[in-house]
Amino acid sequence: MKKQNTQNHNINIGIIGLGTVGQGVIQILEENKDFIGKKIYPQQLKVKKIVDKDINKIPPSYVQYSELFTNSAEEVLNDPEIDIIVELIGGFEPAKSYIIQALQSRKHVVTANKEVIARAGYEILDIAKKNKRYFLFEASVASAIPIIGAVTRSLTSYKLKEIVAILNGTTNYILSKMSEEGKDFKEILKEAQDKGYAESDPAKDINGFDTFNKIFILSTIAFRAKIDPRQIYYEGIEDISPLDIQYGKELGYTLKLLALAKEDNHYLDIRVHPAFISSRHTLANINGVYNGILLCGEDFGDLTFSGLGAGSLPAGSMVVSDIIEIANNFNHYHNYYNCFQKKEIKNFLETKSSFYLRIRVKDRPGVLAEIASSFARNQVSFASVIQKGEAGEIVDIVFLTHLAREGSVQKALREVTNLDCVENIGKVIRVVQI
Amino acid sequence: MKKQNTQNHNINIGIIGLGTVGQGVIQILEENKDFIGKKIYPQQLKVKKIVDKDINKIPPSYVQYSELFTNSAEEVLNDPEIDIIVELIGGFEPAKSYIIQALQSRKHVVTANKEVIARAGYEILDIAKKNKRYFLFEASVASAIPIIGAVTRSLTSYKLKEIVAILNGTTNYILSKMSEEGKDFKEILKEAQDKGYAESDPAKDINGFDTFNKIFILSTIAFRAKIDPRQIYYEGIEDISPLDIQYGKELGYTLKLLALAKEDNHYLDIRVHPAFISSRHTLANINGVYNGILLCGEDFGDLTFSGLGAGSLPAGSMVVSDIIEIANNFNHYHNYYNCFQKKEIKNFLETKSSFYLRIRVKDRPGVLAEIASSFARNQVSFASVIQKGEAGEIVDIVFLTHLAREGSVQKALREVTNLDCVENIGKVIRVVQI
Repeated sequence: MKKQNTQNHNINIGIIGLGTVGQGVIQILEENKDFIGKKIYPQQLKVKKIVDKDINKIPPSYVQYSELFTNSAEEVLNDPEIDIIVELIGGFEPAKSYIIQALQSRKHVVTANKEVIARAGYEILDIAKKNKRYFLFEASVASAIPIIGAVTRSLTSYKLKEIVAILNGTTNYILSKMSEEGKDFKEILKEAQDKGYAESDPAKDINGFDTFNKIFILSTIAFRAKIDPRQIYYEGIEDISPLDIQYGKELGYTLKLLALAKEDNHYLDIRVHPAFISSRHTLANINGVYNGILLCGEDFGDLTFSGLGAGSLPAGSMVVSDIIEIANNFNHYHNYYNCFQKKEIKNFLETKSSFYLRIRVKDRPGVLAEIASSFARNQVSFASVIQKGEAGEIVDIVFLTHLAREGSVQKALREVTNLDCVENIGKVIRVVQI
Repeated sequence: MKKQNTQNHNINIGIIGLGTVGQGVIQILEENKDFIGKKIYPQQLKVKKIVDKDINKIPPSYVQYSELFTNSAEEVLNDPEIDIIVELIGGFEPAKSYIIQALQSRKHVVTANKEVIARAGYEILDIAKKNKRYFLFEASVASAIPIIGAVTRSLTSYKLKEIVAILNGTTNYILSKMSEEGKDFKEILKEAQDKGYAESDPAKDINGFDTFNKIFILSTIAFRAKIDPRQIYYEGIEDISPLDIQYGKELGYTLKLLALAKEDNHYLDIRVHPAFISSRHTLANINGVYNGILLCGEDFGDLTFSGLGAGSLPAGSMVVSDIIEIANNFNHYHNYYNCFQKKEIKNFLETKSSFYLRIRVKDRPGVLAEIASSFARNQVSFASVIQKGEAGEIVDIVFLTHLAREGSVQKALREVTNLDCVENIGKVIRVVQI
């Protein structure tokens, strides 16, 4: 058994993976050495080893760290003097195995790895608990916003009812720019890549997968729920056109890629999709690479957080704050995650939303009646119907529905597609009332 | 010496003062009993005594609490079985003495009392430290927003550079309404009182004193600074007219009662005054009784929090979360406030702002030249000058200055007041660039 580290000693850190976030961690630890030192006095943080293939990733001004380099993760995981493993390689494996090995060797673990937590979080938390070691991951959701800490350590006295959040900076940047400049998705994506706001392979951001991972983690923590992520519906922004953003604007709406999570009787309604929200709402005004999170707790009012959702220093700062949290509780393990309750995710087809439906039709008498009766048969009613663009052979009609069952709207749309007078379903966007 | 409470035992609470917040605390503890119980298992929270004059303040549905009533604070402070004192009587004395007596009897203390912390916080924290007991006060600043927790436990890895905040719900409600409806200050204040958004004696809210107490507490914690609150300038909203709000709007500004705190070389520039900010900024869109806090940390980006700034449940929930924090660290005292550094507050006359100056003048040739040369002599230059209202004998001119020293602007204004062509200085409002 590893001997207990007593106060007055170094707390030794091993960093696995020196990408953007890892470099931020090194920079913050170095630049704020005195500041952090005072907070955890009389202990001291010391980076003992760094695992990466590329020694050149160390910022030139922190040359002293180059001596700590190794390309063997095992060397760090097996070092009995290392107290905290910081896992920053990303992706599922070997990250998951490293984390488990570290916890089983009775090391604390800090990570920013959404994918591992989303796919193996419960298993890892169990292992952490058995070994009485911390497994912390503040940086994994909405980087600079300390939302995991707020939910775990501050908002502890009442049940949260609902979360509505913008959790991906890349897509929020793209949608904000599309809205401001009226340009195409692809054009803005290219600009975002040139500016470093989007990865060269942005698939996991734009298809909603990144947001899905984050809302899964956040819901798990906020609702203390054990849920199956495979039941969560997610949809990205690949098919959003500037036309729908413009039409939405005219109706007083702003388009965001939203993550939603709320208690609905015995179920949790959790989903990720583009959504129109009132342009006057705080979340509508969180633009660019910023993330925003709205927490609702009934009589407690709405709480909103916004901040940078990614980046070397924003994410790095949260990794370091997790390290400080461990240092401050080094000899006093507290399990924040001791009561997950199994919950079912509400079937997406059973969820309710209002809908924005843009339908391309042949501009002739009776069209509206035909479409309306298809929807009526499926218990979907309209709040407003507006013809868009110039009159011509083919026109766009925008329907706003009242609250309706997802499955009913999908069924009605299948019927409508088959109508002679309908060219195609231009776009379906859910409208979220907050 | 009091025996250590071991796990598996009750944690006994004594509540002193059962006003709005105290009633919220009782309600939350009762309604969320199971929920909270799981979080602090195997310990249990138990309200053992409640001190108040009026037993009728207990909500009728929580009749079991009426047995716990006493009108003697001493009885509760001297009860060796009580572990946590919740001080909610407000005001300076006897609250301060109760808190100190509790800590010296080795009881933990939770309070929402801004005034005691602002006037005696350092002294109390010292006593808490000596006795290794917690003194927690999350509810004292921006009720529902867990800002003390965020700054103390989450944003620990880097130095905050600047705080810009709306910390008083009453005044924010009044200013929002004045802006929306164009009504007078007094009329809206009356409405706010009728709706319960303003106290029957709202002086401490509207004169900025409440905001001053809160920014003092928040700056102290965020900058780890030992400062003299008497050096902090504060100004309220009593003299705000709908006219200036309207003129500001036309210039793209929204008026808020702002608390500002930033590091300025060796000084802290901390102050409270009404200020114009860009109407596009997130803070400008935090309306009604909501509070908003912007934290800037340079490369870490801006973090914004908003939530209800007052009320039985919002404030009560934070008191209860402080109690839970103590329960979770019951046998493990950690002093979060161990390194306050003495700092001077920057002399208000030396601070810099842009200014909105509305000056009433006799409408005749040469007026502008006379006023402009007074300002020029004092190194204050203008970004824009706009004549307002109809031409007539007396007109308003609105000047927007570039960044200028407070003292220089005040000196120029004294000179300008004496000019023959000047009727009076209509209004001076600082413009804050965020």
